Amino acid sequence: MHDRIRHAGLLEKRMSAEAAAALIKPGMTVAMSGFTGAGYPKSVPQALAEQMEKAHAAGTDFQIKILTGASTAPELDGVLAKAGGMELRLPYMSDPLLRKRINDGEIEYMDIHLSHVAQHAWFGFYGDINIAIIEVVGIREDGSLIPSSSVGNNKTWLDMADAVIIEVNKQQSAGLEGMHDVYYGTALPPFRKPIMLNHPEDRIGQPYMDVDLSKVIAVVETDAPDRLSAFAEPDAVSNQIADHLLDFLDGEIKTGRMTDKLLPLQSGVGNIANAVLAGLSRGGYRGLKAYTEVIQDGMLGLIKDGTIAFASATSFSLSEAGIAEFNKHVDFYRERIVLRTQEISNHPELIRRLGCVALNGMIEADIYGNVNSTNVVGSHVMNGIGGSGDFARNGFLSVFMSPSVAKEGRISGIVPFASHVDHTEHDTMLLITEQGYADLRGLSPKQRARLITEKLAHPDYKPMLEDYFERALRDSYGKHTPHLMGEALSWHQRYIETGDMRL
Amino acid sequence: MHDRIRHAGLLEKRMSAEAAAALIKPGMTVAMSGFTGAGYPKSVPQALAEQMEKAHAAGTDFQIKILTGASTAPELDGVLAKAGGMELRLPYMSDPLLRKRINDGEIEYMDIHLSHVAQHAWFGFYGDINIAIIEVVGIREDGSLIPSSSVGNNKTWLDMADAVIIEVNKQQSAGLEGMHDVYYGTALPPFRKPIMLNHPEDRIGQPYMDVDLSKVIAVVETDAPDRLSAFAEPDAVSNQIADHLLDFLDGEIKTGRMTDKLLPLQSGVGNIANAVLAGLSRGGYRGLKAYTEVIQDGMLGLIKDGTIAFASATSFSLSEAGIAEFNKHVDFYRERIVLRTQEISNHPELIRRLGCVALNGMIEADIYGNVNSTNVVGSHVMNGIGGSGDFARNGFLSVFMSPSVAKEGRISGIVPFASHVDHTEHDTMLLITEQGYADLRGLSPKQRARLITEKLAHPDYKPMLEDYFERALRDSYGKHTPHLMGEALSWHQRYIETGDMRL
Repeated sequence: MHDRIRHAGLLEKRMSAEAAAALIKPGMTVAMSGFTGAGYPKSVPQALAEQMEKAHAAGTDFQIKILTGASTAPELDGVLAKAGGMELRLPYMSDPLLRKRINDGEIEYMDIHLSHVAQHAWFGFYGDINIAIIEVVGIREDGSLIPSSSVGNNKTWLDMADAVIIEVNKQQSAGLEGMHDVYYGTALPPFRKPIMLNHPEDRIGQPYMDVDLSKVIAVVETDAPDRLSAFAEPDAVSNQIADHLLDFLDGEIKTGRMTDKLLPLQSGVGNIANAVLAGLSRGGYRGLKAYTEVIQDGMLGLIKDGTIAFASATSFSLSEAGIAEFNKHVDFYRERIVLRTQEISNHPELIRRLGCVALNGMIEADIYGNVNSTNVVGSHVMNGIGGSGDFARNGFLSVFMSPSVAKEGRISGIVPFASHVDHTEHDTMLLITEQGYADLRGLSPKQRARLITEKLAHPDYKPMLEDYFERALRDSYGKHTPHLMGEALSWHQRYIETGDMRL
Repeated sequence: MHDRIRHAGLLEKRMSAEAAAALIKPGMTVAMSGFTGAGYPKSVPQALAEQMEKAHAAGTDFQIKILTGASTAPELDGVLAKAGGMELRLPYMSDPLLRKRINDGEIEYMDIHLSHVAQHAWFGFYGDINIAIIEVVGIREDGSLIPSSSVGNNKTWLDMADAVIIEVNKQQSAGLEGMHDVYYGTALPPFRKPIMLNHPEDRIGQPYMDVDLSKVIAVVETDAPDRLSAFAEPDAVSNQIADHLLDFLDGEIKTGRMTDKLLPLQSGVGNIANAVLAGLSRGGYRGLKAYTEVIQDGMLGLIKDGTIAFASATSFSLSEAGIAEFNKHVDFYRERIVLRTQEISNHPELIRRLGCVALNGMIEADIYGNVNSTNVVGSHVMNGIGGSGDFARNGFLSVFMSPSVAKEGRISGIVPFASHVDHTEHDTMLLITEQGYADLRGLSPKQRARLITEKLAHPDYKPMLEDYFERALRDSYGKHTPHLMGEALSWHQRYIETGDMRL
């Protein structure tokens, strides 16, 4: 029997990526696996992109709607964006070429809370899903599927799609088997029940995904790694931000609001997140837990050194070195990591029950604590909101972090008025830049404005913010949230005109 | 034995409102009952305000921090605002004088999701609570308390306060007894468990509130009604909005996304909400359920005529006529209404499980579906976010409604850029004005902008919005969410300068 395809009926459905891609027709809604560059289909999207390019060269329109878990990779988002094959894309992305085409106004992109995607699909808000393309580690004797390096929305796509294409990727470690927890207890209202998960390590589902075998129209074998770049060592600014967070956490422990085990951590992706994780290890924390979305190299290191005792997520996001480390010690990690469907990893019910400490990056915050996570200068989307809203709204603490300036000081991370709001003043508790932290709990808007300006702003911008706020205090229409409507977005306009918010 | 105070020890603690108020000292944090003008203490706050005024006349500072459930009435918020006795007020208010002083910059006000208030207090985010002042219907033989016409945060205030003042109000119907469900299963993370409520009518708590008798420092007898004005009959615009909602709901039923029992309704307060409720009765719906915050006169009518079979809330908000109707048929209503603590009525876990249909008003929406619920011209707070965020983020549907214009057409309800964001583009599904409805589900920002402009804008403003969007499409920095930063808030600035967004 085939090593990775142990079901005779599905073994017979093997075909080339090109043949499988040919089953996808213009106008279809296609749901694909993939979350933060892990577990995405490696070959069918590329074959599909080639067929789209041929169609376009022949003057035929060929576009589809694409749903995923979150970001994928150049072999999916990149090639399909390049081929002009995306009519609509949701919910999160980070591919440079896709981002460019979205911001050039050529691709429609819908940015959704990651906890909402599956249920909005179940509710019928995105219409029918014609085909699902799902990467797996293997197919078992009974036809059930061993999930790959991410789970994301795969259970939902398998359940909902009219037809299923499975990619079996032999480069994904066979050791992943048993690491997943796929919850099948969801229902539509009014038939929903409590989700009986009380700790990050609780298992409430099964390690395999079910699929209606009659829907499987193709099985494609692949042999390619998740393509993720190694992350950079934390820089000085990121380490300063991490140190401020550690100072704050020390204070919370001293006041008794948290123990030295903290509460389950959620950590966004990127350089600052990695610096924060490294800081926790340096700070002497041991036996912490994570209830998060993504396990990056930094998290693996913390699990190895005992800083984190257990981590729940929906995806890996490992560099080549991280994958090698994981594969080498897979039995160790399997005891300490569980991957769940993203409607569970990001579920408001569970995040609130567990009391997560939500640690996320931001593009900018305004003086009242409104946070922009997505749109540079209010219009150019970076990646998307991801799960930051799920965790910030429902966690015990909502923390947003950013350097105080970007582009060599030409952009301030603290502005009079956020040019796009993803997290409102009602949802943000702690803001951190390398300058310091601002604890907004229990403060009114004007109290927040003074603290944010004092603690977080870069010295180049602090006098400008003070000047704006003092004039707003004097001249604002209402003085609950003082603003000068004619000037609130002038920093962004100045950046557009001069390339520098200061000039 | 005293009819309403059936505990001997507490009977001995009776004193005048003046004597009780004298126990409150400057700088204290005082937590009071009260939610949407119901169940607030009627006499101690007034006596306190008099003592504050005397102190101020004598040149002594006398201010306190005040926490409540939501809005109260002139006898609480009005008198204390007038006395200059509020250092900080949270979380929701609607008293005209308090609003004025907040917007004059004289009182600090913190606007919080109503589901967050209790737990942020438990977490220690608001510091110690020195005194709680709680109105009740009566005190039982064992010292437990019969809640009044609202529950709100009263359980939390009783549990947390160092000392408790109880107001026993004999004007509140004794028939309220048995109508409440006070949940004592909450805990701090990491010790939280699922909340086992699966239907709006489920009871998970007890009908009475517990209080540590040794903390009770005063019992004050009162005899005054909740002071609420009768609501106006729905006007033509409100009825048009209700009709658009009914059209939309018909469509949802036809597509099978909901049955004709809909899903549990949450309805905000006010004229449009009442028109919508009246519309549901007119539309022939029967046997619906409500999982909401407030029961207004309109809801009573729907319960009476069978449109609504059961309603869960945390407060009444009845006019004099409504109170009379309720008292006359209290046994009928007690079988069909339950009042809960507000951390349960507004709990994200439960709202998501039940799949509420969230119906809320708004001040303005922008062309991308960002909604401003709180700040007129970005700076002048109206009431607060209330529970709209709890329900909109977690419900099956999030609906926001407003007339397309205000102030005889001088303000547009649809603007290029929301001057304050309480509900982000990620959280809004359906927007309605008297012009029509815009179903935003599954749409990208640019698709939303076209639909919102076409369906919702008043004819006076539609060409202006089209012009803005077309120029933004051409000239925006990024073209995912096209905006002109130099012009995005110009409508609001124009209103400030000329009193009319058009000129």
